[in-house]
Amino acid sequence: MSISPDTKDRILSTARELFHSRSYADVGIKEICTLARVQKGSFYHFFPSKQDLAMAVIDDMSDDWAHGFVAEAFDEALPPTERLDYMVDAVYYWQKAAKNVEGRMPGCLFGNLALEVSTRDEVIRARLNAVFAKASARFHETLDQAVENGSIPPLDTEATATAMLAYLEGVILLAKTRNDPEVVRILGPGIKTIRIELKPTN
Amino acid sequence: MSISPDTKDRILSTARELFHSRSYADVGIKEICTLARVQKGSFYHFFPSKQDLAMAVIDDMSDDWAHGFVAEAFDEALPPTERLDYMVDAVYYWQKAAKNVEGRMPGCLFGNLALEVSTRDEVIRARLNAVFAKASARFHETLDQAVENGSIPPLDTEATATAMLAYLEGVILLAKTRNDPEVVRILGPGIKTIRIELKPTN
Repeated sequence: MSISPDTKDRILSTARELFHSRSYADVGIKEICTLARVQKGSFYHFFPSKQDLAMAVIDDMSDDWAHGFVAEAFDEALPPTERLDYMVDAVYYWQKAAKNVEGRMPGCLFGNLALEVSTRDEVIRARLNAVFAKASARFHETLDQAVENGSIPPLDTEATATAMLAYLEGVILLAKTRNDPEVVRILGPGIKTIRIELKPTN
Repeated sequence: MSISPDTKDRILSTARELFHSRSYADVGIKEICTLARVQKGSFYHFFPSKQDLAMAVIDDMSDDWAHGFVAEAFDEALPPTERLDYMVDAVYYWQKAAKNVEGRMPGCLFGNLALEVSTRDEVIRARLNAVFAKASARFHETLDQAVENGSIPPLDTEATATAMLAYLEGVILLAKTRNDPEVVRILGPGIKTIRIELKPTN
């Protein structure tokens, strides 16, 4: 066991999987080291604290998302409202696949961490908030384009974008509590009906 | 320190407060006993395990809700759509008050626990699922009445009820991540716009 180029990656992917399938507090550094086959010294070389590891896991997952199915869903080539359908479908197939492997629907790692640690770790909370702001910006862009091309009537696109993200997180939360990805499929279409109206200006 | 009639209540209220403001895993039985001023023996007399305590906390909070602001919000004397406004307002003022006291928005204890423990504790997951089903039933009843009195067009009232509950949980999740109850006030009105259409029968 030595500090090889992939040691950091092994720690990251092990931690990400464990945090996601269980919880942040439930997984210790010792367990991560054992499963990733690294010594504690190597671990602390890359991650001085568990908080540093959590930040790296969040960034890692966020990067994967941004370049993976979020990029596909929010592809400018798709009509704006189809992007919302794509996003819901992607969440459904992702959660269904994860449940097939693990027997349990893991939910959204960001949502899980947000509810578990937000009151106790200001640094992690701020990072998760930034991830959500970035996701919300994709919805915002999409809604602005949908209003511009006339496919939806004018509305408060910024607030509605955040509302749609909230809905997606809430649907995942209930689906995880039922341990049933079908909840995502059934409730998913509701995302396109959410509207926050523009405040009257005068 | 002895097993007095209020010993169980002290344990329950202490655990409920700590689980809510932090997390389930973050709070140990020892800390609960110290703060509730009970000995471990008394604790285990009432709660053979931490899981038993969690179940009692969920039931306790669920009872308080059912007889407190959920009963007020879903008062049959209110027009159905006003019940939804009342529910959103109640969540907003509750979270705002909690943040004023603790400096941190605690979110919904049920949602917090659901994301933290659902993959690891089947018993707690099932109990939380029952709490959500009960909450969803209140929305369902309300929507059925709203359709009946013509204040909203026909829709899949059962699925929309669950969608509204999901939205509320998702809004609380994002608000907690921003540590800002105003998110609930701004996104709240969106709840009444969510619709899941009836499947065409043919």
